[in-house]
Amino acid sequence: MMNTYEYEDLEIGHKEEFSVTVTEDMLERFREITGDMNPFHRDDDFAVKHGFRSHAAFGMLTASFLSTMAGMYLPGEKSIIQNTEVKFMQPVYPGDRLTFCGEVAEKNDAYRVIRIKVSVKNDAGKKVLRGSMQIGFLAKG
Amino acid sequence: MMNTYEYEDLEIGHKEEFSVTVTEDMLERFREITGDMNPFHRDDDFAVKHGFRSHAAFGMLTASFLSTMAGMYLPGEKSIIQNTEVKFMQPVYPGDRLTFCGEVAEKNDAYRVIRIKVSVKNDAGKKVLRGSMQIGFLAKG
Repeated sequence: MMNTYEYEDLEIGHKEEFSVTVTEDMLERFREITGDMNPFHRDDDFAVKHGFRSHAAFGMLTASFLSTMAGMYLPGEKSIIQNTEVKFMQPVYPGDRLTFCGEVAEKNDAYRVIRIKVSVKNDAGKKVLRGSMQIGFLAKG
Repeated sequence: MMNTYEYEDLEIGHKEEFSVTVTEDMLERFREITGDMNPFHRDDDFAVKHGFRSHAAFGMLTASFLSTMAGMYLPGEKSIIQNTEVKFMQPVYPGDRLTFCGEVAEKNDAYRVIRIKVSVKNDAGKKVLRGSMQIGFLAKG
């Protein structure tokens, strides 16, 4: 289900949420897309040697779901992401279930753009990512 | 080939560059990972109706290659992206060949982190993305 919010439909404080489980298959597809063969994301010995539990997900893979937040949920169909900033706060491991929460933080009536605050928590309730997106709306076609 | 730069190896102004051609297959894999089924990225009629040449790549797909810039090139193996900000300046279409240029913009000796400025141009020489990443280094294992 894709939301179809227009600028006028959204008020500051409006929230949308979804959860995904990060899988090895997602890491593999992300590796195939980007060609990022960094051992931190595939080699447990390497990751453990550097103080991590095991190989970890790509930060930019977790960030990729901001596309889902904008394009499917907030605002959905009419979404055009103009810019985004993301802070990685904790490692994400394959098997982690992540909950993405987006909230309308600002509306700019002059430009008809919104700013969405995004917060991502793992199943332990730890915040793994904090970010925001400035999003415009496709003109009514 | 993966670079293995340590903090000490990098000077402000150090540049790394690579090019990729954005393919429909990449869009499909990104869709499979994220579940972002937004029609702007798959339906030409929808995209044209809203004033675009055809369906366009996901902005966050283009941004995914910042993972490649950090994890393979600058600094490569020891890279840990701490945060990133990205501005999308022009649409990217399947078939576009993109050149990613990363440059060390800042070094912080106290925290041993670097800031990489990233600029992405399409084959027409138009800047499609501008961004930066703050990157730390894995401890010597």
